[in-house]
Amino acid sequence: MIIDIHGHYTTAPKQFEGWRTEQVKAFYEKLETPKPPVLTDDEIRVTIEQGQLKVQRERGTDLTIFSPRASGMAHHLGDAQVSETWSSMCNELIYRVCDMFPRNFVGVAQLPQSPGVSPANCIAELERCVLEYGFVGCNLSPDPSGGYWKDPPLTDRYWYPIYEKMVELDVPAMVHVSSSCNPAFHATGAHYINGDTTAFMQFLNSELFRDFPTLKFIIPHGGGAVPYHWGRYRGLAQDMKKPPLIDHLLNNVFFDTCVYHHPGMQLLAKVIPTKNILFASEMIGAVRGIDPETGHYYDDTKKYVDALPITEAEREMIYEGNAYNVFSRLRAQIERQFAA
Amino acid sequence: MIIDIHGHYTTAPKQFEGWRTEQVKAFYEKLETPKPPVLTDDEIRVTIEQGQLKVQRERGTDLTIFSPRASGMAHHLGDAQVSETWSSMCNELIYRVCDMFPRNFVGVAQLPQSPGVSPANCIAELERCVLEYGFVGCNLSPDPSGGYWKDPPLTDRYWYPIYEKMVELDVPAMVHVSSSCNPAFHATGAHYINGDTTAFMQFLNSELFRDFPTLKFIIPHGGGAVPYHWGRYRGLAQDMKKPPLIDHLLNNVFFDTCVYHHPGMQLLAKVIPTKNILFASEMIGAVRGIDPETGHYYDDTKKYVDALPITEAEREMIYEGNAYNVFSRLRAQIERQFAA
Repeated sequence: MIIDIHGHYTTAPKQFEGWRTEQVKAFYEKLETPKPPVLTDDEIRVTIEQGQLKVQRERGTDLTIFSPRASGMAHHLGDAQVSETWSSMCNELIYRVCDMFPRNFVGVAQLPQSPGVSPANCIAELERCVLEYGFVGCNLSPDPSGGYWKDPPLTDRYWYPIYEKMVELDVPAMVHVSSSCNPAFHATGAHYINGDTTAFMQFLNSELFRDFPTLKFIIPHGGGAVPYHWGRYRGLAQDMKKPPLIDHLLNNVFFDTCVYHHPGMQLLAKVIPTKNILFASEMIGAVRGIDPETGHYYDDTKKYVDALPITEAEREMIYEGNAYNVFSRLRAQIERQFAA
Repeated sequence: MIIDIHGHYTTAPKQFEGWRTEQVKAFYEKLETPKPPVLTDDEIRVTIEQGQLKVQRERGTDLTIFSPRASGMAHHLGDAQVSETWSSMCNELIYRVCDMFPRNFVGVAQLPQSPGVSPANCIAELERCVLEYGFVGCNLSPDPSGGYWKDPPLTDRYWYPIYEKMVELDVPAMVHVSSSCNPAFHATGAHYINGDTTAFMQFLNSELFRDFPTLKFIIPHGGGAVPYHWGRYRGLAQDMKKPPLIDHLLNNVFFDTCVYHHPGMQLLAKVIPTKNILFASEMIGAVRGIDPETGHYYDDTKKYVDALPITEAEREMIYEGNAYNVFSRLRAQIERQFAA
């Protein structure tokens, strides 16, 4: 089975995204929050069948670990209550997709983060999503302020309440920023990649995993700049008298394969241990076109992984085995959904 | 000749850095600015002979394009006047180094940027450094706020006054942030690399080089995350209906080789055209140790470039030829300094 661990519901029905616009407007204009739209199963089905499911079939992948649209999280809009309502609705929608397509999608939660608000406010929603919806992880933004980076580093005790719940539930987080309201940062071209690089360096410069030896994070988009600068990071750790990165971080930090060309994927596979690489494409996402150099979609990352000079056992780890190690609840959840 | 286009005076005499601390303290405590320290030639000479010159000789490089310590620029401390005094002193010190070691160092200017202050305030200092000191370029920070990214993108008309002067003087800028006062960003492990990635995406998302066809920028640290995500950037440009990156940006944007391991350097050379790669090490800089995997200094980038599977003509472009193309005043300045 080929598991794509990084997919967002970027094709959600228009009236759903439209309601979000109204919700935010109501907050800032002090109006009554509009009633949420009622989506029929058919309205949801068509967006998946003509979207992610179609692409899965075309590319030969089997199952996507699916979460709400990352740039739609926009924790910086409104307040914690606005974020809570929106997250809850987004997660319910993901649950409905997984329920309708149990062999193709397993859920991951958006958290109701809000700038300057303790992440303890995310515990109830995480618990609900894992225990009631069968979700296997969450997305955690290191920058709820949307490009101004006003919250403490991910290694600060500020974040410990949500880590304690993650450890208790045995679910990992993908470190994923949302849209940027800072004109300096293009969302998918700068803010996303910077978020990845920044989080990794925060982990490096800490003893977080001494406090939480079983806490697990996935750094998406191939780890931002990290694998390309692996020598720099090994050297920085060494100058700081940290243990080698493989011991210091790689029992807890994992990278996905959202790198959209062969040379990048080759570098990733060369410098990062196979056990730390999880297959992902983020389709239908940041880059939608066809690469004229290959004739294939840029984000058809399976093509790059298939071409890696590694053993079939290693490829199987990237495609499936590592996902079970990182998402500890995944195997049982798949069995439950397949039996449904 | 092997030209290292990215070196900072990280070994400046202690009393010089000490004065800066006093200067900033005086500003915030509304005290009189202390008198600048008087540095003798011998005090400067020893820091170079035991520092950058020693490393040049050990590694077999010939000449370093040399600028003030990047993390020392700290444009966010004090105000524009504080920044102007400090920049002027830093640049004078670089000039003295180049004057004492004319065969080994050519200068690049620090600019007196200040958050929220028009970069027009940098014109006089740039002109002075180029015309009086013989400097061949400048360092330009896209984030004078030191990690809060409060100034407009580099492609905003806000920056045009300094670009007009750069074009008139025919000098390039290295896009280089300084230290970070934002606890989210480790300086050399996150802020530097993010600065590189962010600037590239700003250029991509603009028509800046239609307005300034001869303006040139170097993105240091191997271009941040950009070469590793070259497919992503090609794809984003394509989705935005921009021309191919090679036409859209690569007549104006160049990358240095500050990538501290073989696989990273190989990727850089594979995806970026040779004409856009300039040799650099940033010694003595962010990473000071010896890589146990190779037995050599992480930042001895000449070893990685020497090992690239390219022709000798291509290697010569990276080591020397491209530097003359990007730093238009370099060849004449070297001739002047060698004749001194």
